[in-house]
Amino acid sequence: MTDLPTRITITEEGPREGFQIEPGPIATAYKVALIDALSAAGMPRIQVASFVNPKLVPGWADAAAVVAGITPQPGCEYTALWFNARGLEQARGFGDRLTLFGSITFAASEAFSRRNLNRDHAGQMAAQREMIAVHQAAGLSPTRLSLQAAFGCNFGGEVTVAQAMSVLEDAMALAADTGCVIEKFSLADSMGWADPLHVERLVGAVRARWPGLGVSLHLHDTRGLGIANALAGLRMGVTMFDAAVAGLGGCPFAGHAGAPGNIASEELVFLAHEMGIETGIDLDALLAAAELAERIIGRKLPSNLLHGGTLSRFRRAA
Amino acid sequence: MTDLPTRITITEEGPREGFQIEPGPIATAYKVALIDALSAAGMPRIQVASFVNPKLVPGWADAAAVVAGITPQPGCEYTALWFNARGLEQARGFGDRLTLFGSITFAASEAFSRRNLNRDHAGQMAAQREMIAVHQAAGLSPTRLSLQAAFGCNFGGEVTVAQAMSVLEDAMALAADTGCVIEKFSLADSMGWADPLHVERLVGAVRARWPGLGVSLHLHDTRGLGIANALAGLRMGVTMFDAAVAGLGGCPFAGHAGAPGNIASEELVFLAHEMGIETGIDLDALLAAAELAERIIGRKLPSNLLHGGTLSRFRRAA
Repeated sequence: MTDLPTRITITEEGPREGFQIEPGPIATAYKVALIDALSAAGMPRIQVASFVNPKLVPGWADAAAVVAGITPQPGCEYTALWFNARGLEQARGFGDRLTLFGSITFAASEAFSRRNLNRDHAGQMAAQREMIAVHQAAGLSPTRLSLQAAFGCNFGGEVTVAQAMSVLEDAMALAADTGCVIEKFSLADSMGWADPLHVERLVGAVRARWPGLGVSLHLHDTRGLGIANALAGLRMGVTMFDAAVAGLGGCPFAGHAGAPGNIASEELVFLAHEMGIETGIDLDALLAAAELAERIIGRKLPSNLLHGGTLSRFRRAA
Repeated sequence: MTDLPTRITITEEGPREGFQIEPGPIATAYKVALIDALSAAGMPRIQVASFVNPKLVPGWADAAAVVAGITPQPGCEYTALWFNARGLEQARGFGDRLTLFGSITFAASEAFSRRNLNRDHAGQMAAQREMIAVHQAAGLSPTRLSLQAAFGCNFGGEVTVAQAMSVLEDAMALAADTGCVIEKFSLADSMGWADPLHVERLVGAVRARWPGLGVSLHLHDTRGLGIANALAGLRMGVTMFDAAVAGLGGCPFAGHAGAPGNIASEELVFLAHEMGIETGIDLDALLAAAELAERIIGRKLPSNLLHGGTLSRFRRAA
């Protein structure tokens, strides 16, 4: 157990990834209220909006209003997503509130690239080269390399560690060629293919190949292994995780309505705290934010801890 | 990862523990249909009924009818529960269909003993001595030692490894004194207090103290750590687990309606298979049984895999 970290940093993606998947529009005030509840609970990093084409993603037509509406909490980093120069420009308009950083994104599965990004690997190399230039022109040379479908793909099937490593090698070569200094990898399992041994193998391979770089895990709980996979990551020394309060969100690729989405932030915090790993988050306050998320969405969300409750009241009573 | 077993045995407790907690009566035919679906999926061991006082547990007034109604599947062991001589006598009436065995039960938390069994530790020692005699008179000398609240207790708070070991020592002394040959321990976390490190510590202590004996884990997913705790058990070489299809059941101690219950059998099977550990179970057939359980109960059950779906259709298509 020697690689267990003493502290981890969670990036909350519920407001961005979770609300986006809902069929109806979520009121801007609700989004703002949830983000403020999360920052008040001590969440250190929150992805608050997506600057995307409102015709394609109508749920984020209010991205600017959300960012303008939140009450910035000292010590909390607010981040946003964008996929083109126009989105980056909008995000830069909130440079005082948002922590902006450039990112390179690839998929370990070519089938996923073609289906989700509408490009093959070569096309994605060219598109990323262009996006790097756009970011560098804005003074945001990419520091993060994100690998989608890092463990498997609903369209392409199994993804081996060798296949994932090969795409990372190509991406790192592109980064070197364009002068990007990558500081961390994000390994994403948005379709729920990872298992604990696969997490150990891929994280182990990445750390062995690039020992100085950070690794972040973006895990989904589609098939119930999300927290076990996070445990495997912790054992490998991973200190950065994405998660979504209440298990907000779902999986647009699952082909099942009601399929679970990201691992629930409160379950990850509970796992960490019970194992003596710090997060800086007040778990009971986070659970209150999860209850708010459930009220906003109006149906039972997948987090078990949200419905089972924390141990704090039992510990106080004992 | 050297202690990972190559094969595990799952005891399905959904029909017994899961149906018991439901407020309305579940039709006998539904109970039988679910049990038969589980055995057809290759479940090696199913707890099918509880021979208890129907005035106290009206949901099991039909225990005899359920046992009589199932279609025994070769290779599947059917087990039942009872808490007194009368229940044992009823179960013995089905000696041709049921695998009967005697069991000694203690709680690691005295507060739990008092609240759930209505006896302190000394009272429980006396009661168990009497039950051992009843079982031995029936030719069923107890071979299993079950420890409730092994990791923590909603009424008594934290349970340390030392506290759990002390109760096990007393129980093993009672077993020796009465001529019981204990073959396996069942460590139960019905209130959802375990975390992976605690599982490793307690299982490690038990295995070090009684190296020849088997260890079985009865884990609940009350707070989302159930499958991560199972993973910790697997890493410690545990080969026997209880689970409930679809995550059927709840927690009568949680104080939350809708709190999750046992770990979902299909999530445990999925975890095992993805890690190369055999269960003898057909996961897709088990998922069909989980869907049946959800239709019987008439509300969304907590299993994520049930709603996320297995990977088999994606693997076939790839």
